[in-house]
Amino acid sequence: MAEKILNLGIPTGSLQKATVDLFEKAGFHITESQRGYVPEIDDDEIVLTCLRAQEMSRYVADGVLDAGITGYDWILENNSNVIEVAELAYSKATSKPTRWVLAVPNESSVTTPEDLRGGIIATELVHVTKKYFADRKIDVKVEFSWGATEVKARLVDAIVELTETGSSLRANNLRIVDTVVTSTTRFIANRQALTNEFKRAKIENIAILLTAAIAAQNRVGLKMNVQRKNLDAILKTLPAEKSPTISSLADSDYVAVVVIVEDKVERMLVPALKRAGASGIITYPLNKVIH
Amino acid sequence: MAEKILNLGIPTGSLQKATVDLFEKAGFHITESQRGYVPEIDDDEIVLTCLRAQEMSRYVADGVLDAGITGYDWILENNSNVIEVAELAYSKATSKPTRWVLAVPNESSVTTPEDLRGGIIATELVHVTKKYFADRKIDVKVEFSWGATEVKARLVDAIVELTETGSSLRANNLRIVDTVVTSTTRFIANRQALTNEFKRAKIENIAILLTAAIAAQNRVGLKMNVQRKNLDAILKTLPAEKSPTISSLADSDYVAVVVIVEDKVERMLVPALKRAGASGIITYPLNKVIH
Amino acid sequence: MAEKILNLGIPTGSLQKATVDLFEKAGFHITESQRGYVPEIDDDEIVLTCLRAQEMSRYVADGVLDAGITGYDWILENNSNVIEVAELAYSKATSKPTRWVLAVPNESSVTTPEDLRGGIIATELVHVTKKYFADRKIDVKVEFSWGATEVKARLVDAIVELTETGSSLRANNLRIVDTVVTSTTRFIANRQALTNEFKRAKIENIAILLTAAIAAQNRVGLKMNVQRKNLDAILKTLPAEKSPTISSLADSDYVAVVVIVEDKVERMLVPALKRAGASGIITYPLNKVIH
Amino acid sequence: MAEKILNLGIPTGSLQKATVDLFEKAGFHITESQRGYVPEIDDDEIVLTCLRAQEMSRYVADGVLDAGITGYDWILENNSNVIEVAELAYSKATSKPTRWVLAVPNESSVTTPEDLRGGIIATELVHVTKKYFADRKIDVKVEFSWGATEVKARLVDAIVELTETGSSLRANNLRIVDTVVTSTTRFIANRQALTNEFKRAKIENIAILLTAAIAAQNRVGLKMNVQRKNLDAILKTLPAEKSPTISSLADSDYVAVVVIVEDKVERMLVPALKRAGASGIITYPLNKVIH
Amino acid sequence: MAEKILNLGIPTGSLQKATVDLFEKAGFHITESQRGYVPEIDDDEIVLTCLRAQEMSRYVADGVLDAGITGYDWILENNSNVIEVAELAYSKATSKPTRWVLAVPNESSVTTPEDLRGGIIATELVHVTKKYFADRKIDVKVEFSWGATEVKARLVDAIVELTETGSSLRANNLRIVDTVVTSTTRFIANRQALTNEFKRAKIENIAILLTAAIAAQNRVGLKMNVQRKNLDAILKTLPAEKSPTISSLADSDYVAVVVIVEDKVERMLVPALKRAGASGIITYPLNKVIH
Amino acid sequence: MAEKILNLGIPTGSLQKATVDLFEKAGFHITESQRGYVPEIDDDEIVLTCLRAQEMSRYVADGVLDAGITGYDWILENNSNVIEVAELAYSKATSKPTRWVLAVPNESSVTTPEDLRGGIIATELVHVTKKYFADRKIDVKVEFSWGATEVKARLVDAIVELTETGSSLRANNLRIVDTVVTSTTRFIANRQALTNEFKRAKIENIAILLTAAIAAQNRVGLKMNVQRKNLDAILKTLPAEKSPTISSLADSDYVAVVVIVEDKVERMLVPALKRAGASGIITYPLNKVIH
Repeated sequence: MAEKILNLGIPTGSLQKATVDLFEKAGFHITESQRGYVPEIDDDEIVLTCLRAQEMSRYVADGVLDAGITGYDWILENNSNVIEVAELAYSKATSKPTRWVLAVPNESSVTTPEDLRGGIIATELVHVTKKYFADRKIDVKVEFSWGATEVKARLVDAIVELTETGSSLRANNLRIVDTVVTSTTRFIANRQALTNEFKRAKIENIAILLTAAIAAQNRVGLKMNVQRKNLDAILKTLPAEKSPTISSLADSDYVAVVVIVEDKVERMLVPALKRAGASGIITYPLNKVIH
Repeated sequence: MAEKILNLGIPTGSLQKATVDLFEKAGFHITESQRGYVPEIDDDEIVLTCLRAQEMSRYVADGVLDAGITGYDWILENNSNVIEVAELAYSKATSKPTRWVLAVPNESSVTTPEDLRGGIIATELVHVTKKYFADRKIDVKVEFSWGATEVKARLVDAIVELTETGSSLRANNLRIVDTVVTSTTRFIANRQALTNEFKRAKIENIAILLTAAIAAQNRVGLKMNVQRKNLDAILKTLPAEKSPTISSLADSDYVAVVVIVEDKVERMLVPALKRAGASGIITYPLNKVIH
Repeated sequence: MAEKILNLGIPTGSLQKATVDLFEKAGFHITESQRGYVPEIDDDEIVLTCLRAQEMSRYVADGVLDAGITGYDWILENNSNVIEVAELAYSKATSKPTRWVLAVPNESSVTTPEDLRGGIIATELVHVTKKYFADRKIDVKVEFSWGATEVKARLVDAIVELTETGSSLRANNLRIVDTVVTSTTRFIANRQALTNEFKRAKIENIAILLTAAIAAQNRVGLKMNVQRKNLDAILKTLPAEKSPTISSLADSDYVAVVVIVEDKVERMLVPALKRAGASGIITYPLNKVIH
Repeated sequence: MAEKILNLGIPTGSLQKATVDLFEKAGFHITESQRGYVPEIDDDEIVLTCLRAQEMSRYVADGVLDAGITGYDWILENNSNVIEVAELAYSKATSKPTRWVLAVPNESSVTTPEDLRGGIIATELVHVTKKYFADRKIDVKVEFSWGATEVKARLVDAIVELTETGSSLRANNLRIVDTVVTSTTRFIANRQALTNEFKRAKIENIAILLTAAIAAQNRVGLKMNVQRKNLDAILKTLPAEKSPTISSLADSDYVAVVVIVEDKVERMLVPALKRAGASGIITYPLNKVIH
Repeated sequence: MAEKILNLGIPTGSLQKATVDLFEKAGFHITESQRGYVPEIDDDEIVLTCLRAQEMSRYVADGVLDAGITGYDWILENNSNVIEVAELAYSKATSKPTRWVLAVPNESSVTTPEDLRGGIIATELVHVTKKYFADRKIDVKVEFSWGATEVKARLVDAIVELTETGSSLRANNLRIVDTVVTSTTRFIANRQALTNEFKRAKIENIAILLTAAIAAQNRVGLKMNVQRKNLDAILKTLPAEKSPTISSLADSDYVAVVVIVEDKVERMLVPALKRAGASGIITYPLNKVIH
Repeated sequence: MAEKILNLGIPTGSLQKATVDLFEKAGFHITESQRGYVPEIDDDEIVLTCLRAQEMSRYVADGVLDAGITGYDWILENNSNVIEVAELAYSKATSKPTRWVLAVPNESSVTTPEDLRGGIIATELVHVTKKYFADRKIDVKVEFSWGATEVKARLVDAIVELTETGSSLRANNLRIVDTVVTSTTRFIANRQALTNEFKRAKIENIAILLTAAIAAQNRVGLKMNVQRKNLDAILKTLPAEKSPTISSLADSDYVAVVVIVEDKVERMLVPALKRAGASGIITYPLNKVIH
């Protein structure tokens, strides 16, 4: 009988640290080996492989890996036949989708994709870019760029490049013409692996834990003591979709109310609750939240 | 109708990181821009400006800013007409007041402020120092020093300089003659801004959140299970001013007791509670505490 | 009457940061002084001394220190007459015992300790090594090595050296012949000090707090709402040795269940509880756990 | 008789490392003390004091220091009565004069100094700025700014700020209206000190060495063998103002020619000399050059 | 008439710092801009562009750049029609050619390229690898790898990867099967650019200076005084191919001998010359050497 | 016939970087391996071993190493029978001898070694310390300290510890009672190795190169043109023990004078020569100087 092992790919590069941190929050400890790229995880049923996000979906589609973490952009670029198990919004800092944009120098006369007809486009995302122009029936030459594509905007007619805040584009005096594709991080699995009972359960468990860790990241537990007579008023202050846990206290005039709220809500709620008469308000950090 | 915006100043320099951390704990995320000094906060009703603590109160008094964070020393130095909304004891490390001291070289013959009559004093805090000597009717010349004032102690007769632990004074072989002023961090507001309903509420909310975050910093939640027969004894062990939350458990012989304590109390309380028969004692971190 | 002071030694070197962090978690704040080795702790009843782990037990045995933190290996090497108050498993990273191993170059013909008869052994742990060979009636010469002992494996016949992951041995192409001694960190006390009421209580309190902080390190609090009808099923899912705290909620169909679990258990438990019908599952970090 | 000591001030801050390096090249070794600001120099006749460039000229004018290094801008600001012994162009990186510019936000309507009539100007260089506007008979209020003046450009009407490359201004979206003053580094001396024979000689020697070290920084020695018949042609290739040293070789058909050239000249000269038939061309670094 | 400008490409990545350093030694100062990739050089006739070495030859072949620095491997991979002006052995550390090797896991059964028939090869150097196997009439599938190719050696059948010291291969437990190509750094030019008089001269000058700077890197000037009677003996001690410069001294019994030698020769020569009676031996560093 | 190999030990720790730098200046390139302690040198006749200075002389005396670099203090402590080939004054920073001093807390009543009769001394240098006290017929107990000995000054009666600038002693509030031994760095050899022709020559060559590199470190070459009529005056300005090299120039009124001077002399000489009428004065760095 086959050993119970899940081959899991995690991305190197800009996502690596965030991924290791996320697994830590999910309850796994990953030891990064200094040289070579064979990190260890403290779960004997998982074997990790570190790969660039660009290649991950190819190896998951081939079945070399059972599951992996990569971006939607590269799944598309590789046209990989994989199952998306979960979308992962890593952290406050990376929770916005990234965008691949068609950009030209500020001084270029190009204002629409059509203006690039017959031109040369440099990009790392060759296939997605070709499809973007083919869909619009615009004939262009798309050339592969090995990164630092911004600098080539002045050597070719336009580039398709990743942007998060736009600051790198601004620093290179580039102007966005259009968005080619937006992308977020995905937890993907091999189709065949999901038909194996052990692997499917393992993949689902990892998805539950990663999702619960992400959910906890921007939330806090909020606890307060409320006089029974004020309870209805206080409950109306809380976000409508939340169902607080109410428990009785030794002092029967009071109840304890606990609710999980997003930190952006917390900062409005705490002053409001104080004004509404709640006492002993505390908030505390969470490791995991499952709705 | 005017847009709802609060212009808020936060200090650069030694307080900057601590301030950004404190806002993070209070529930706001500040993104420091790398160049320029225009940080962003994830609250559309707040516009941040970074200024040195030395100048903050001048801009709050003028109304260029609605509110800001600075030290009591610089409010005094600038003689600024502002309202102090809250005193902020940032963290364990910076929770002690800072002191501006009158100091001389160890080998100096000066032992009292009076010995400096006719002398020259170098300091960053020119006006406060002038007032200190004027109050004592001691005639001195006070010269502005651009920082690193310790080194000038041997070029002039005395200095008035900031000290936290005294280690910089010791390293320069200086001796303290007197304390000129002690200072802590303050959250200040413009008088006019407080008459605007939106701004007053916003300022109060920020004050509540900052104060609650600071209160949580040196406190922990402590929870334990107590047999009903031991409850009175256990409760007497707790600090008198605390009102614990007591709730019943499924096992009716026991109650759960939760109390918020300072960490300096916790380290004495935990062993005592264990000896007094409490079981399942845990302590946990807090994000905010409102008494 | 004598002042109430406990003289406590903490180790410099690889354990120093971990020790300072552990005391922080236990509720004490240690300020490391930059030069000199006289750190300060925010407890007026404790005077700290920083010493290398190698020497700690000598000074505790002599009574220069009342208590200290060191490794079992060096207690043995110094043959010190001290009381072990607690074993401290610092953190995930250092929770495995360290091993002193007898090692030779890969290409050496030595495969058993007996093969070293008449040979030279270099080690920092001279007395323990001498005893190891004497117990086996193998005559060898044991030479003191000042660290970086691996490099000497090719200059002598074998070495006895510390290993955690074995990576330093591998990097030097060494092979393990035998384990000489395994060691963990210990909190030790002077025999005489334990007869003094103040010192004994102080030492016990520190032991309780350090142990509780370590216990909390790899554990989380887990809370969930459970329908009464599912309660038995859910309770069976929990680790057998745990006694969860069950409390009633305002909604009498539900109870709140709280349990402290190890993080390695948590990651299996959370998906299982979700499948078993628990709702509102959250986990949260802990500062201290006393069973 | 008075001890032979020269009190010399060197600037802290951005110039400090460059100054220490320059003295090193000049033949002096300065040991920076880690705390306190009392560096040591390996010349028993010099006592160093580190001061901010802003204050240097005040202490030299007062005679507390005999000589010092500071910027022309701050000599002007302090209106100090000192002698400028030498102008020092530290290094390639800092050899351009710095400029204090009058700047406004890009979107400001101000285009000339006159447009600021009645406005507020923030600057570190208060007196120079006041004089600039007084000379133009423009009435403005000049306020002292504690650094990071760019950020205040939006709080007041204009700023006067230091710029080297203009990148900080661009990053803050500021526009230059006018140059208020340009400045370079100066070696200054107290008038009285120059009447003392020992001090005057010492100051002159330091000036010779610093100037010779600076001259060597951007120059190289160039040596080549030239056939006597080509000598005239080769000599015409050399910069007109240079007087090469020509020496005879054992092989009487050849002479050796040595010339000191600037490195910007060297890179044009070397290929030209090679083409003109010079052989054995080498260039080598210099420590000092005295014309 | 066209402006006199040379468009010059310099490589980013591992060669960038070495290239900037080499130009510095050659007499040019390159200021790296912090963001964006438009560095400045202190020569108004050169415009720099930073590109990855992988793409350089494509842009030089197209004429977007007049000249550039890249590796022989990538000229081959891109099959670019460019002129190689000079081979550049950057420094001691990088003076060995790099090798692209065919490698497999230590435990693989593959020992010759033929064993890979029908297999999959991952590499960054796709075209060169395809040609390597085609030349040997071995049918394989070559897949593009985005770097960190070592880790994929266990996901495919073999890799073709760059190696300098072999340490990365060892760390990944890989074994070299064959060398696919060796490569050194090249200064390349566009064919058309070399027909333009200004550009050809400029390219040649840069080549002369870079080559002279590299030649100086591992050489020293050696000077000594030799008694005429010992001259022949001393000259025989010198490397045969060197032609020393001999000049007469004021003391007619002696001559001065100067010779340029490699530093590996210097360390054998200096003791030998001392023994042979040379006096006043000094060696000194060089900036440029033209043979 | 035996292979021609010299086994050479170089010290790890504080001397390691300085040693590697010194060999670099001497003409050897040492590549430090990152893990393990087997550095490589670019001379096939030398095999390096890195050892702590404390142990070096033991392995040289035993013949495991043919030669090595260590301190005089540790040769003495180990009482090793080795030959001192050369004394090495590494650099300006480390060129002063280090001192082992007997030190006590400032507040101690001890003022002479005799006051320590019957006391305990902690030190790393056990044997030298024992001999120091035995020579004075003072009975003390000397205990081995594993470093950071300063902190133990308050746990025992006195310490014997290394001091360079005294700053560590001052930081620990210690007072020097006496100097026990002073020490400099030495190049030592095994007695037997010096009887082998190859090894003796190799050791002598290394000694010549190291010594020449050290001599060059604090010296510069100085060259100037002098009118024949001024030559005698100029020559008298030069340090008496120097023999300048004088060569004739094409212009027969002038001669070129070259002299090697210490940099401390250079800084006095250059201004003096300028005043005495020398022209075209330059100084330049040296790699090696053999007198």
